[in-house]
Amino acid sequence: MRFNVSSQLNYHVKFPSTLILNIQAQMSSAQYVVEEKLTTNPQVNYEEFYLEAGSSRFIRLQTGNAQTLEICYSATVDCSTELVPAKGAPPVSIAEMDRNAIPYLFPSRYVQSDRLSKLAWDLFGKINDPYQKVVAIDDWIYSNIEYALGSTDSQTSAYDTVVERRGVCRDFAHLGIAYCRALNIPARYFSGYAYQLNPPDFHALFECYVAGQWLLFDSTRLAPLNGLVRIGTGRDAADAALASIFGGVQGTGVKVDCQLGSGETFTPLFRNQLRTQGIAQNSGDSSGNG
Amino acid sequence: MRFNVSSQLNYHVKFPSTLILNIQAQMSSAQYVVEEKLTTNPQVNYEEFYLEAGSSRFIRLQTGNAQTLEICYSATVDCSTELVPAKGAPPVSIAEMDRNAIPYLFPSRYVQSDRLSKLAWDLFGKINDPYQKVVAIDDWIYSNIEYALGSTDSQTSAYDTVVERRGVCRDFAHLGIAYCRALNIPARYFSGYAYQLNPPDFHALFECYVAGQWLLFDSTRLAPLNGLVRIGTGRDAADAALASIFGGVQGTGVKVDCQLGSGETFTPLFRNQLRTQGIAQNSGDSSGNG
Amino acid sequence: MRFNVSSQLNYHVKFPSTLILNIQAQMSSAQYVVEEKLTTNPQVNYEEFYLEAGSSRFIRLQTGNAQTLEICYSATVDCSTELVPAKGAPPVSIAEMDRNAIPYLFPSRYVQSDRLSKLAWDLFGKINDPYQKVVAIDDWIYSNIEYALGSTDSQTSAYDTVVERRGVCRDFAHLGIAYCRALNIPARYFSGYAYQLNPPDFHALFECYVAGQWLLFDSTRLAPLNGLVRIGTGRDAADAALASIFGGVQGTGVKVDCQLGSGETFTPLFRNQLRTQGIAQNSGDSSGNG
Amino acid sequence: MRFNVSSQLNYHVKFPSTLILNIQAQMSSAQYVVEEKLTTNPQVNYEEFYLEAGSSRFIRLQTGNAQTLEICYSATVDCSTELVPAKGAPPVSIAEMDRNAIPYLFPSRYVQSDRLSKLAWDLFGKINDPYQKVVAIDDWIYSNIEYALGSTDSQTSAYDTVVERRGVCRDFAHLGIAYCRALNIPARYFSGYAYQLNPPDFHALFECYVAGQWLLFDSTRLAPLNGLVRIGTGRDAADAALASIFGGVQGTGVKVDCQLGSGETFTPLFRNQLRTQGIAQNSGDSSGNG
Repeated sequence: MRFNVSSQLNYHVKFPSTLILNIQAQMSSAQYVVEEKLTTNPQVNYEEFYLEAGSSRFIRLQTGNAQTLEICYSATVDCSTELVPAKGAPPVSIAEMDRNAIPYLFPSRYVQSDRLSKLAWDLFGKINDPYQKVVAIDDWIYSNIEYALGSTDSQTSAYDTVVERRGVCRDFAHLGIAYCRALNIPARYFSGYAYQLNPPDFHALFECYVAGQWLLFDSTRLAPLNGLVRIGTGRDAADAALASIFGGVQGTGVKVDCQLGSGETFTPLFRNQLRTQGIAQNSGDSSGNG
Repeated sequence: MRFNVSSQLNYHVKFPSTLILNIQAQMSSAQYVVEEKLTTNPQVNYEEFYLEAGSSRFIRLQTGNAQTLEICYSATVDCSTELVPAKGAPPVSIAEMDRNAIPYLFPSRYVQSDRLSKLAWDLFGKINDPYQKVVAIDDWIYSNIEYALGSTDSQTSAYDTVVERRGVCRDFAHLGIAYCRALNIPARYFSGYAYQLNPPDFHALFECYVAGQWLLFDSTRLAPLNGLVRIGTGRDAADAALASIFGGVQGTGVKVDCQLGSGETFTPLFRNQLRTQGIAQNSGDSSGNG
Repeated sequence: MRFNVSSQLNYHVKFPSTLILNIQAQMSSAQYVVEEKLTTNPQVNYEEFYLEAGSSRFIRLQTGNAQTLEICYSATVDCSTELVPAKGAPPVSIAEMDRNAIPYLFPSRYVQSDRLSKLAWDLFGKINDPYQKVVAIDDWIYSNIEYALGSTDSQTSAYDTVVERRGVCRDFAHLGIAYCRALNIPARYFSGYAYQLNPPDFHALFECYVAGQWLLFDSTRLAPLNGLVRIGTGRDAADAALASIFGGVQGTGVKVDCQLGSGETFTPLFRNQLRTQGIAQNSGDSSGNG
Repeated sequence: MRFNVSSQLNYHVKFPSTLILNIQAQMSSAQYVVEEKLTTNPQVNYEEFYLEAGSSRFIRLQTGNAQTLEICYSATVDCSTELVPAKGAPPVSIAEMDRNAIPYLFPSRYVQSDRLSKLAWDLFGKINDPYQKVVAIDDWIYSNIEYALGSTDSQTSAYDTVVERRGVCRDFAHLGIAYCRALNIPARYFSGYAYQLNPPDFHALFECYVAGQWLLFDSTRLAPLNGLVRIGTGRDAADAALASIFGGVQGTGVKVDCQLGSGETFTPLFRNQLRTQGIAQNSGDSSGNG
């Protein structure tokens, strides 16, 4: 499935600063970047880099003496998702788990899985089937957490969301990850472009490692799982910030778009339409780092 | 410098479980494991593994039907530290930083560097020299945080330590890391064996990335910086847990020892003895992952 | 019903200090103190006082130069509880509420009722009958929170207990109070001696203001509601600390006892034995301050 | 000194609800309300009440079926402040303290004085003179906390402000109270109208109990201490909320004004202009409850 994605970030620059951006589509066997373009106005120096482990693409950019900065990214990306038999898969065994999934078992900045362990076991511990367990987590979050723009901020963590029961996509993802990890199921953060997300914006969801695959879950149910273009993979939003600012830079606007490629026909697929299968974006990739 | 290190971990096992241990000495150009032995009583299955990025060595162990479990590790390790000209080194430039140091700029489970940004800049922002900046952080922690066994627990984070001003080595390390990251200096967690630590135990400290090196800082000043045998390197204690338990296992005792190799002469070196130089363990290793 | 209660508190005193104690049985129409005795060893100066509002009795005590201090309190108290028709009582109307109940609507140190508002309404908002609402809160806490000695400390608040799902009587009480206040039902903290509590200790529970009465709820279900001798009434444990220390004093031991008066026959009564009635200790007292 | 104060609160009402307002000037020997008027549009039912302890005046108001509600309060108030010899006053002795000041020693919703005890003693413990101690607290807050509108919300507490070092008047007051209580000095929250506050708004500050008086401290230094008209006195903002909403009501606007009475001459007085004296509003009133 082909998508045309774009984003435009505007900044006010107070003094020469560095930005690390994570807005480009990942390249993988499941996601082919047909073409892409990144421009800045004014033109400034930047370089692309990867971290040692991981497929997220980062841009390190020097503002120089620019006072305002506009960053425009656009790409045409062919994405494939795969339906994976998931119900009835054997329990997620730490003993045999792909070693690269293991870091996704531990707590992280926004995911205090260590502190909500009893809660997770009380709610979901009796479900034996690992896929059904995560399905129950996903349902629980969808039913119990209210999607409310502006109700949280960059410091809100899963711990808060358990109590306050409100949040945005990022908070929904963090809570899903927290419940999975508390149950010894590796889970990670996914940021991306999302087709049919309304209003258009960057999106966040989570993946859990079940049935030997990273399966996609979006407990907001605001965008179909087969309309995603992956940008970042990480332990939580601290790993996958769209823009990290080092210096004196202030965001003044963001525009995001995700359109279907011409000639494509799209049948939206949500997790709750599937009874026994999960949806994976990176089929065939056993790595822990998308 | 040669050290003989050992540790013994005892567990009560309620039902067959998995343990992930991180107690073995790392192997690197700065740390040569002459010999080592890991035994369990009763004998159980385990395997060693590395994560995709990083040199920490993990043991994945199945308790099987054992009801009690004793794990004994001992090793003879040759460690080298290097004095590094540090004062007067150029500022830590995000623009030119080794890409593998970048993940150590972001907040993590126990290190909410995003929330204590203003505090860090107020306290240390006027110091231009990056090494002197971290020296000031180290001095500040040593002077302001009381070392108090039992005053904190596994959920205590840098955020708490700023307010409560008490903690153990792990808390001292987290706060050092938090201040560094808040100032845009990469910093990471170091766990290890420590010679002359009294009472003997595992130890934790932090490294910051200054002058193109990962320099060692131990704000507890409880052990010399040239008497360390590295076990784990990570973003914080969540990455470098000595033992992660998946199942029903309860710790019943820990014994740790670190002795000087026969024939060695040891002159303890503490950070505050150095005016212009830093101490690095992994000289020559530019990788972000120890 | 007559009870013989006693408590003994032991302290190590580092330098002359002041203690404020709240260990004496309250005196009210529902609780008649037949006789009581308070002794200290060595003999030190103290005075009893009340706060402007409230019936809790405080002892302000100067340690002087004593190096150890033993405080012994014993009392014979006649307590009466009353069964109150509660089911079907009109909603708790803020508009007509006794003004002295109003302070018990607001958040306090350990009761962040403002932050768990949505959770409380999701869980209990659909229950119209105010008594049934609190009954449901009480049942929920009993079913969802594990009683675990040593699992929490003096800083644990209702916010934490919602997530961590473990605690002691004080934590159970704080969570009950938090849910009630979030639902606009005044609720307060009750500390006291408790007959048949095992092991013997001071006890804590909560009262809510329903049907024009302060009804007793003990979600731990560890002691019968008709075997309580009231010591403190407050917004939360910060108001009803058994001992507040100003200076250098360290607790070295506490012994508590509560026995039935001779000749009395006791039929334990727990909240869940009652379908339509509540239990109140202070029948006839409309004041907000026990 | 005469002040003409007024406030106008606008609400959107979704369904019949109750409001508890705390916007009227207190009446006391130090504050004489010459005349006042409270009107609502549309006209709705309300009653005024006091709590058992305390001089804060509350309005309990039923919205009825109004869909929008405007509440207008205006008053002419004669206020007197008094300069109190404060430096060199004897230490704040718990042993001899007015019993009504004692509740202001304990932690409360936004004031976790128990958790920042060591910090408070480290910073201010060496200052013996109790007035100089609070003067040092006031100076510290003024110097270390940035006044930043919008940087905090209704859940921000003193614990957060110690770390994040930003806030508004309410946060400044909470931190001052926390430091005082941690040092065993009673401290309480003051809300009021403030002359020369720019932009005009309700204001918050704190009082500490030193030299047998409640002395005024405003660490924001945004308004003179002799230009205050007291509305609320409480343990923290939870006790002195301007408006507590029970039902479905949303604030749509607030206007506040404070003008000098005609013919008055005002010489602004700030705490830092005084070397040896404190400023008290309620001279002669030994009660703990303003």
